[in-house]
Amino acid sequence: MCDGKDHDHNRRKVMKFTGAVGMGAMLAGPMNVFASPAAGNIQSRGYAAFDESGKLKPWKFERRPVGDNDVLIDIKFASICHSDIHQEKGHWGKQKYPQVPGHEIVGVVAAVGKNVTKFKVGDRAGVGCMVGNHNHHHDTDEEQYNPDTIFTYGYPDDRSPTGISQGGYSNNIVVEENFVMHVPENISFEEAAPLMCAGITTYSPLMRADIKPGMKVGIAGIGGLGHMAIKFAVSKGAEVYAFTTSPSKVKDILAFGAKEAVVVDDLSKLGAYNGQMDYLLSTIPYDFNVAAYAAIVKPYGTFTQVGMPIKSEVTVNALYLAFSRVNFNASLIGGIKETQEMVNYCAANNILPKIQKIKANQINDAWESVVNKEARYRYVIDAATF
Amino acid sequence: MCDGKDHDHNRRKVMKFTGAVGMGAMLAGPMNVFASPAAGNIQSRGYAAFDESGKLKPWKFERRPVGDNDVLIDIKFASICHSDIHQEKGHWGKQKYPQVPGHEIVGVVAAVGKNVTKFKVGDRAGVGCMVGNHNHHHDTDEEQYNPDTIFTYGYPDDRSPTGISQGGYSNNIVVEENFVMHVPENISFEEAAPLMCAGITTYSPLMRADIKPGMKVGIAGIGGLGHMAIKFAVSKGAEVYAFTTSPSKVKDILAFGAKEAVVVDDLSKLGAYNGQMDYLLSTIPYDFNVAAYAAIVKPYGTFTQVGMPIKSEVTVNALYLAFSRVNFNASLIGGIKETQEMVNYCAANNILPKIQKIKANQINDAWESVVNKEARYRYVIDAATF
Repeated sequence: MCDGKDHDHNRRKVMKFTGAVGMGAMLAGPMNVFASPAAGNIQSRGYAAFDESGKLKPWKFERRPVGDNDVLIDIKFASICHSDIHQEKGHWGKQKYPQVPGHEIVGVVAAVGKNVTKFKVGDRAGVGCMVGNHNHHHDTDEEQYNPDTIFTYGYPDDRSPTGISQGGYSNNIVVEENFVMHVPENISFEEAAPLMCAGITTYSPLMRADIKPGMKVGIAGIGGLGHMAIKFAVSKGAEVYAFTTSPSKVKDILAFGAKEAVVVDDLSKLGAYNGQMDYLLSTIPYDFNVAAYAAIVKPYGTFTQVGMPIKSEVTVNALYLAFSRVNFNASLIGGIKETQEMVNYCAANNILPKIQKIKANQINDAWESVVNKEARYRYVIDAATF
Repeated sequence: MCDGKDHDHNRRKVMKFTGAVGMGAMLAGPMNVFASPAAGNIQSRGYAAFDESGKLKPWKFERRPVGDNDVLIDIKFASICHSDIHQEKGHWGKQKYPQVPGHEIVGVVAAVGKNVTKFKVGDRAGVGCMVGNHNHHHDTDEEQYNPDTIFTYGYPDDRSPTGISQGGYSNNIVVEENFVMHVPENISFEEAAPLMCAGITTYSPLMRADIKPGMKVGIAGIGGLGHMAIKFAVSKGAEVYAFTTSPSKVKDILAFGAKEAVVVDDLSKLGAYNGQMDYLLSTIPYDFNVAAYAAIVKPYGTFTQVGMPIKSEVTVNALYLAFSRVNFNASLIGGIKETQEMVNYCAANNILPKIQKIKANQINDAWESVVNKEARYRYVIDAATF
C-alpha cells in the first residue's frame, strides 16, 4: 500500500524512467531483423529469467524460422504484466529457463509466410497471451480454453529452438497469423501494448456482464488491469466503484471516471457497499477474502475474478458466499476475435492505459515496483533498448 | 470411504440401532409436557454438547414460556445432520455450552399462543434450521439471509433461559409460528424429519436451477443431503450422475434413480465427465478441489455448494475455474415458504429419505458413523428415548 510519500517517490522514479526514452528514436528506427521464410532460425535478443529469483538478464536466443502461416514482428514495445512476475518466480509451477516473459507486445510486421493473408510487411501488429496452436488449426473463438493453444512464453512448443515459447521482452517474435491483432494508426505503439493482456482480460468479462448505463460496477484491485476495467465500465455508462488498498491511487481513480474510490485498508470498509453492486470484477493477483468482496454484490449478481494469485488459489468461505447469494466465476483472457474488437473499441473511444516508459535495463526495478503496488499503471519497455 | 466390509458392519449396526424402537411406542405415546402460555418456563430434556469433544450427554434444561406467537411442539423425531457435528465441535467458531443440537425436527403441536392462527394443538408439525426472529417480525421469504433470524441451536436468543437457542435433540421445542411447517398425514414423522434441513437445502438450489427433463445433473457427496438431491433431480426428469467416495454406496445410488454412480477415489475419475453436466450440486462437507468438480459442468453452467466445511472454507483454483467457465455459488438452506412447498412436494411425489432409527443413547455412535461416511443415509432419533 502506498501513502503520499510513496506516491511522490514513485512519480520521481517515473520521470527518471521516461527521461531518456525519446519518441523519435522509437518510431523512426529501422527494422533490426531481416528474415525470410527459408532463411533458418531468427536471431533474437531480449531479457530472460534464468531462475526463480525474479531477476532478469540480457539474453541472445533463436526463434523458429517464419513458417507458412507465421508473421514475424519487429517489436516496438512490450509491457509488464504481474503475470510475468508470478510465472518467472515459479508461483504457478516449475518453469523451464532461460525464459523470456512478456505477453503485451506491439510492433511492425517484418516478414510473412506464404499462406498469410491478413497481414503484410509494415503493418502495425499486436500480440497477447497466445501465439499459436499445437495442431496449427484455428476453429474456435475461445482459443484461451483450447488445450492445443500455445501461450506466449514458457509453454512447450516443439517448433521453438529452446523447446518453449519465448515472450515479448525482446526485439522480435514469430507468431501464427491467427494470433496477431491489427493496431489502428490512432493508437500509439506504447499505449497499445497493455491492451493485449490488461485490456482484453478486463474487457472480455465486462462485455459478458452486459454493462448498461447506470449499473453499479465494482472494480477491485486498481493496477494495470483494474485501471483499464474502470475505463471500460465508465465507457459503457456504469457508475464505477473502485476498491483499492492504495490511498495514493484515489486521485487517479477519480480521473479515470470512477464515481467513488474506496480505500480498503480494512475489510470492514466494504460493509457500506453491501449488496449494492450489479457486477464486480476483481483483478487482485493475491489470495484474498472472496466472500467479503462477494457480499458487496446484489443477491444473484455475479463476481468475476481475473487476477491469478500464487498457485492460482483463492479461499472462499462458502457460508458467507451463501449469504451473499452471488455467483463467483473466473475469466482467463479473452478470444483473439474479441481482442481485435477490444483494440478497435479502444481506438474508437480513446480508451488508453496510463503508462510509464522504461528501458530494458530498468525491468528489474520495474518488477519490484509492480510487486510493491507502485506502478502507475503499466510499465512499457522500449524494445529498441534490448 | 467404505469398502464392502464396512458396509456389512454398518448394516449390522443399523439392525442393532433399530431393533429396540417399536413404531407403536413412538406414535401412541401421550404428550409428555403440558404447557400453557402463562405457566412459565417449559421443562425440557435432551442431549447436549458440553464442550468441543463431540460427545453428547443427557441434559435437563428450560425453554421460554409459549409466547403469543409461539407454538410448543412435542417432538417425535429429530434427525442427525453433519452440521450438528461441525457446530458442536467448534468447527465453525467457538460455541456456548451446554448446547442441544438438532435442526431436523418433527412432532405434534402441544400448545399455541393466543395470536397463532396457522396451527392448533394436535397438528403434525416440523421445524428446520430457523426458529424465530429477533424482532419478531416476518417480512421476507428468505429468512435464512435475514440478519435478525434466530437459527435453531446455539444462536443468541435473549428469550431463552440459557441465552441461546436449544435444538431438537430433545423432547419438546418452542418455535415462532412463522417458522413451523405442516407435515401431511401421508409422511411418517420419522421420514419427515430429514426433510427439514437435508430436504430443503437440496430442494432449494435444485428448483432455482430449473431442472428440465433430460438435463444432466451432477450430485457430489452422497450422504443425507446428497441422497435427497438425487431423488429431487430424478423427480424432475434429470439424468443424474452421482459422485461419491464410497464404493459401498453405488447400489443404493442406482436404486435412488441415478443414471450413474461414479466412485471418485481419485480426482482423475472426473475427467471422463468434463464439461458434461448442465448443473452440479455439491454437498461435500469438507474442503475439496472446487475447480476440479467445476470442470465437469458445461461452460457457463452453474455449480452450487451446500455442504459447509470446517471454517466453511473451500479452496478455489481461479485458473482452473476460468478454464471451466463455470459459475460457483453457495446456498444455505431455503426459505420457510419454500420449505413447506418442499414438504408438500415430497408428500405428493413420495420422495422420502432412507433412514435408520436410533435411540438417544446411540447418538454418539451415530455421530461417529456420520463422520466415517457410514450413515445410510440419515439417523433419526426417537424423541421418546430422551
